[in-house]
Amino acid sequence: MKPLYLFGTHATLAALANPMRKIKRVLVTKNTQAELQKPLAGIKNIAVVDAPKIESALPPGSVHQGIAVECDPLDQPSLQDWLSERIEKPVLLLDQITDPHNVGAILRSAAAFDVGAVIATDRNAPGESGVMAKAASGALETVPLISVTNLVQTIELLKKAGYWIAGLDGTAKQPLHEAKLDAKTALVLGAEGKGLRRLTAEHCDFLVRLPMSNRMESLNVSNAAAVALYEFFVDRSK
Amino acid sequence: MKPLYLFGTHATLAALANPMRKIKRVLVTKNTQAELQKPLAGIKNIAVVDAPKIESALPPGSVHQGIAVECDPLDQPSLQDWLSERIEKPVLLLDQITDPHNVGAILRSAAAFDVGAVIATDRNAPGESGVMAKAASGALETVPLISVTNLVQTIELLKKAGYWIAGLDGTAKQPLHEAKLDAKTALVLGAEGKGLRRLTAEHCDFLVRLPMSNRMESLNVSNAAAVALYEFFVDRSK
Repeated sequence: MKPLYLFGTHATLAALANPMRKIKRVLVTKNTQAELQKPLAGIKNIAVVDAPKIESALPPGSVHQGIAVECDPLDQPSLQDWLSERIEKPVLLLDQITDPHNVGAILRSAAAFDVGAVIATDRNAPGESGVMAKAASGALETVPLISVTNLVQTIELLKKAGYWIAGLDGTAKQPLHEAKLDAKTALVLGAEGKGLRRLTAEHCDFLVRLPMSNRMESLNVSNAAAVALYEFFVDRSK
Repeated sequence: MKPLYLFGTHATLAALANPMRKIKRVLVTKNTQAELQKPLAGIKNIAVVDAPKIESALPPGSVHQGIAVECDPLDQPSLQDWLSERIEKPVLLLDQITDPHNVGAILRSAAAFDVGAVIATDRNAPGESGVMAKAASGALETVPLISVTNLVQTIELLKKAGYWIAGLDGTAKQPLHEAKLDAKTALVLGAEGKGLRRLTAEHCDFLVRLPMSNRMESLNVSNAAAVALYEFFVDRSK
């Protein structure tokens, strides 16, 4: 298996602060080590290296801010295990969303708007990566990212556990802000351009749309997720 | 001057549909030409090439979908010219937001939520680029992207033109959804991590924050923009 490297200040410090994350070693430049003296105190296996050494471990163009961590992927819970914890928070279901930047940014918004878990179909979802962790800005360590094989079975499982299933669909009649959003709502998001698959939409309890001008067909998927999760969050705190 | 290449279906078709965009030539693969027969009908200077030829003109890893357009940057209006058109829509002010992906995604959300113009300080803002146009998904052709030199002077100019200046600031007391948002509101967004500069904040009429859980410090800047512009849009349509 290829070693997993996380990089950038937020992503690596969050990984180092996560007791469930198995760290192999930390690569840090002298300058960054000096800046991060406090959060790096007591951390083992630190190698002080020059920037090119860090760059050689990462995809070209990675903005590493002088720090990278070699580690194992997280041991994510199964959906059944997560449900058995009875966390009364909304969840997000991602159907065929493949871009790690988008999944990372979605995890970040999920943390910001207090979502319980992000669930993704595993055939098309990107695995944990440095790019995803960077975009998640620490949220990869705090928001469970649950892989499932079959989205329709997952929807049925969530329904049995008492969740309402809301599909985000540009053609829906009801705008999001007029829907009653329970804490136990699962929001389903499809891939950009394609939207929800027909079978997925049929299994939702209701469909909602983001109100939008006719000047643009759709939002970037991480932006659509942020808007929807914000609306959930504000609705719950009213 | 380096030639400007836009790429990807949405960005290039929007450029070709924009009468203000000076097109030099279109590079398209045989397959993509067949798929886009209708939108490409009547377009001059089309060169049918293979994918590597397109790739050689673009930054490494660009997802071009078989089409690229060589063109001139748009002749964007000055703020004074734009204001003289008296378009009664909100505007967005970007203070030191430098990532072209983010600026592109922000333009896309600005189109989706019917914003009049995006204004950016030119010393730190990225120039028009293929990456920005791709992320904007066509919105670079429809949303004026206005460069200004001095943000405080710009704020004062907007105030004189009757705009309310709202700064988005994580430390503000008032949550965004409780603010009264007039169509003539200018929303100021600072760089991620740094937020609004002190002087910028002082010149705002009021500050608002996005309500958020304590599990995350901030959103990605394009996600924060999307949420704020959504709230403006819903508020105006009520």
